[in-house]
Amino acid sequence: MSVLLSRELERIKRSLLALCALVEEQVSNAVRALLERDEELANAVERRDQDVDQREIEIEEECLKTLALHQPVAVDLRLIVASLKINNDLERIGDLAVNITKKARALALMPAFTVPFDLAGMSEKAQSMLHDSLDALVNLDAELAKDVCSRDDAVDAMKREIRLGAEELIRQNPDDTPPLMRVIAIARNLERIADCATNIAEDVIYMTEGAIVRHHESA
Amino acid sequence: MSVLLSRELERIKRSLLALCALVEEQVSNAVRALLERDEELANAVERRDQDVDQREIEIEEECLKTLALHQPVAVDLRLIVASLKINNDLERIGDLAVNITKKARALALMPAFTVPFDLAGMSEKAQSMLHDSLDALVNLDAELAKDVCSRDDAVDAMKREIRLGAEELIRQNPDDTPPLMRVIAIARNLERIADCATNIAEDVIYMTEGAIVRHHESA
Repeated sequence: MSVLLSRELERIKRSLLALCALVEEQVSNAVRALLERDEELANAVERRDQDVDQREIEIEEECLKTLALHQPVAVDLRLIVASLKINNDLERIGDLAVNITKKARALALMPAFTVPFDLAGMSEKAQSMLHDSLDALVNLDAELAKDVCSRDDAVDAMKREIRLGAEELIRQNPDDTPPLMRVIAIARNLERIADCATNIAEDVIYMTEGAIVRHHESA
Repeated sequence: MSVLLSRELERIKRSLLALCALVEEQVSNAVRALLERDEELANAVERRDQDVDQREIEIEEECLKTLALHQPVAVDLRLIVASLKINNDLERIGDLAVNITKKARALALMPAFTVPFDLAGMSEKAQSMLHDSLDALVNLDAELAKDVCSRDDAVDAMKREIRLGAEELIRQNPDDTPPLMRVIAIARNLERIADCATNIAEDVIYMTEGAIVRHHESA
């Protein structure tokens, strides 16, 4: 591999890491905005989504430029194609964080309502999966990537528990339907964030081992 | 462009079209399985998802091979990168169809329940967006792609209407919470299918006009 290509690949990885740090913060702030009824923080998350979008575009352009100029093959080509997909996933996670702030905003307009589920804990699980999936990419660490995949079930289970619990509460107190529906929606967004992290981890495994681990179980 | 590269690009487009036709059918059958309480059809959709997954992998390999062998640049490179993303979107739509059959199966286990919303109409709208987005890709038709994007709002509005209507019904009859929650989930899956079609259309516009139309409005 040429020195120039190797430098380009490092640059793309660094850009992806920076974008990942940004969307992690977006997710964490969106959940905080929800739990603390902090409208200003919700606004900040929505504003910064433009930054996420802009960086996604820049990373895609970087990948295209590298493909055109260096015409990489084999593992380098796979790395760039995986980067394009991961870039896409990170942007989607940014959108999911914005979705959460929208629900947070709707909840804030309703009478004070204590969320009877551990959304913060669920969010932390999803964020740590995201974080580790990018670490796995940067270090081409298939073991860590597999570990990320194995944690997806726990998040799915939490979401299921929240959904069933909220349905039961709705049956008991139909007037709480609107806030509880928002809570279910937020849990679903967090589950989708964990799914995106799993996608990223699967791409890392694919890239490092050449094996198809995707689609072992379609969600 | 070499004749060989041109042939490869045509082959990739044809493969994407075939995959699109398959996932369109999956969506349509998933909604039919729901409305007709047809468990056999739901099973068939779930079985055929393996075929969707397999084709996604094959198309990705085709794209990688074309990149490595022909080292395309400029518009050809963009076409392949867009194809990789569209391929991914089609596979996601396949997963959404499977999600719908899971809800259909859950609904079929509940006491007979007439869905009080036009899910079939919503599904048709989403399918026609999907179909047109792939037509736009094959013919590099930016006008058709823009038309697809403009239709997304109507699907979003239908989903919102279904959600609000279902919430109201839940308040009136809390015992109908479980089936109505499934109906909302199905409407959301259909909305996400329309979003995927919009993503595809935006990629077509980007490719043909080089303009960034993505992120004009994050959902």
